[in-house]
Amino acid sequence: MKQPKPRNAFYAQSGGVTAVINASAAGVIETARKHRRHIGNVYAGRHGIVGALTEDLVDTSRESAAAIRALRHTPAGAFGSARYKLRGLDQDRAKYERLIEVFKAHDIGYFFYNGGNDSMDTAAKVGLLSAELGYPLTCIGVPKTVDNDLPYTDCCPGFGSVAKYVAVSTREAALDIASMARTSTKVFILEVMGRHAGWIAAAGGLAGKGPKDAPHVILFPEITFDRERFLARVKESVDRNGYCVVVVSEGVKNPDGTFLAEAGTKDAFGHAQLGGAAPEVARLVKEGLGYKYHWAVADYLQRAARHIASKTDVEQAYAVGRAAVEFAVKGKSGVMPVIVRKSSRPYRWTIGEASLTSVANQERMVPRNYITRDGFGITAAARRYLEPLIAGEAPPPYRDGLPDYVQLALKPVKRRLKTQFKV
Amino acid sequence: MKQPKPRNAFYAQSGGVTAVINASAAGVIETARKHRRHIGNVYAGRHGIVGALTEDLVDTSRESAAAIRALRHTPAGAFGSARYKLRGLDQDRAKYERLIEVFKAHDIGYFFYNGGNDSMDTAAKVGLLSAELGYPLTCIGVPKTVDNDLPYTDCCPGFGSVAKYVAVSTREAALDIASMARTSTKVFILEVMGRHAGWIAAAGGLAGKGPKDAPHVILFPEITFDRERFLARVKESVDRNGYCVVVVSEGVKNPDGTFLAEAGTKDAFGHAQLGGAAPEVARLVKEGLGYKYHWAVADYLQRAARHIASKTDVEQAYAVGRAAVEFAVKGKSGVMPVIVRKSSRPYRWTIGEASLTSVANQERMVPRNYITRDGFGITAAARRYLEPLIAGEAPPPYRDGLPDYVQLALKPVKRRLKTQFKV
Repeated sequence: MKQPKPRNAFYAQSGGVTAVINASAAGVIETARKHRRHIGNVYAGRHGIVGALTEDLVDTSRESAAAIRALRHTPAGAFGSARYKLRGLDQDRAKYERLIEVFKAHDIGYFFYNGGNDSMDTAAKVGLLSAELGYPLTCIGVPKTVDNDLPYTDCCPGFGSVAKYVAVSTREAALDIASMARTSTKVFILEVMGRHAGWIAAAGGLAGKGPKDAPHVILFPEITFDRERFLARVKESVDRNGYCVVVVSEGVKNPDGTFLAEAGTKDAFGHAQLGGAAPEVARLVKEGLGYKYHWAVADYLQRAARHIASKTDVEQAYAVGRAAVEFAVKGKSGVMPVIVRKSSRPYRWTIGEASLTSVANQERMVPRNYITRDGFGITAAARRYLEPLIAGEAPPPYRDGLPDYVQLALKPVKRRLKTQFKV
Repeated sequence: MKQPKPRNAFYAQSGGVTAVINASAAGVIETARKHRRHIGNVYAGRHGIVGALTEDLVDTSRESAAAIRALRHTPAGAFGSARYKLRGLDQDRAKYERLIEVFKAHDIGYFFYNGGNDSMDTAAKVGLLSAELGYPLTCIGVPKTVDNDLPYTDCCPGFGSVAKYVAVSTREAALDIASMARTSTKVFILEVMGRHAGWIAAAGGLAGKGPKDAPHVILFPEITFDRERFLARVKESVDRNGYCVVVVSEGVKNPDGTFLAEAGTKDAFGHAQLGGAAPEVARLVKEGLGYKYHWAVADYLQRAARHIASKTDVEQAYAVGRAAVEFAVKGKSGVMPVIVRKSSRPYRWTIGEASLTSVANQERMVPRNYITRDGFGITAAARRYLEPLIAGEAPPPYRDGLPDYVQLALKPVKRRLKTQFKV
């Protein structure tokens, strides 16, 4: 029986990057290198799907084994990511056709798309169109999002590390304010990411164990903000503990549905650009209670903080990359590897699969039973879910006091098309 | 020759805490325990000098050796710190006399004050009054400040760790924005501490090596902010690199001398409470150039981040604590141990001493030759100075995915005075 000629693979990173998305890239590339009978070269999109549309491809086969291995400890998107939404096939058909045109030109038979909800939708649609056009293409999603809001997977690679960053930072800042509160700052507010789902804010709850421990208040996007109840709780905490630590999600909403702090700008997906919930909460505390406050906005620091990544998260990110290639080699398509939890204590997990169409454009919120009845904390069930995800340390190597992150060579693949595409 | 009866020591933490001030506490307590012929118990002030004024003392002799050892890896002030300024002897004589009264009641013959400029001033004045009153008291300062602005010491314990945090965070966030810039965020702004001196902002410069590397702009308090020149530089960076990373000190000032962002509140020392330079810079970028931006304010996270502390800093913090006790045992008083740099490459340092009165209330700014001629970066001389201070890692132990910081027992010393003191 004659083995068919191996075809090339296209790998792209999509949306907001994480501390471990490059570990998924390493999983894809290293595993593809082990399946040379099926997969030729892995080409990566320079700046994600934009690289495919503009025929701006990186030849990963020209990266050393050491460089690819170093992706496991390097945060952010080594090939560049993109916030670039493809709409429906009817609306954006030309773009989908362009993708297939580029794939054809480079004999790409495998499409690995490393992203969140929007990206799984795109991957599914590319699969649909390639079938319609009779172009054989294996489409596999690789889950990634700090927001932890993908359905059908127990957790999302990228989340565990930001969760660990937020829990560690909350614990550390809480010690600081506990030191100062007698004569100075009484309220500390840490703003974290999580546009619609409060998973990252919930992770702040891991900083403490007992009812007196920080954080004393968590503000979830799932719970409508109630100014009076919030201020009463802050006062109660200051009266009882001498201080109050608040973790606030950027996605917290007022009773009228507006975000507590909207910057007024929108991103490529039409989502409002947030940032500034912490200073707004600080303002309310100052006006309502008069306490001296400090606030921090972690922003990109939280999702880029590879130096404090969760070992569990690094391993899962690598595993979904590896599994994506293994699925492809087995002839599967239109699916995404997911994390399946077998047990929480001790933590055991394995890889499962979900169809891309089922995952696409769905968001999974923090369930109500993970949030305490008063709406300001996490329950034992939430701890049971969250704790394994931040377990273990996987520090990067250091040189001259700084993490020694890899910079890839990023050798371009020679263009084969005369046509240009403007994004 | 009869050995005089050992007298007790009083140790207090003062001002803003750091990732390594507890390492200094460990240095004081462990060294005192080795000199039992001279020093009896070490009593720590609960919330710093306020603990002395209110006779709220912690008996450190009731803490286990393991707990004291764990202070080396625990951030913030384990005994509580205070922002509580004692003014001149004429204005606040009653407070100084109260301190001596409490010291007498507990047979305290040694005063170790762990703080910055203001605290060295206080320690010097306590020494003056005790001499005037004929009460024998050894007064030793233990330097501490993230701001690195104390004179006569090559660097201040606390600074190296915040410097490392800022350099690491800048490097990580820069990778993030480099990933996103093609289709999304073009400008990232990180606000760091440093009210008057730009040492912490300067440390951000260590994140990159070459002229294209982030940070592309550093805004120092030492350099008056010039809106037009700043915007021109941001545009140049975005045009050349695709993005721009800005590190801004909270203490950056407008040409009229006002802070770029003043919150309008003042602390106990009469200093303006800052915070919000980053969103203000972001606003200027948006208005002037229209770029999509993200900003972060590290605030307490940076000075509490023991998880990413500099090993050099931890060692120096311990060493000044140890040296303070050794000075006292040798009969010195009115002095502070300082870090003396013997060589930068390789880095070699030793402990020297400075008189408290010479240190008091002086601030050391970043010298002009550490800042590039354009005012937006650091020079080779600055790198030579800064690099050794962030060298080495000293991670805390972890439990369940989180740093296992110690909580001391904090057993109170029995009160001996009938009199109360209200702070």
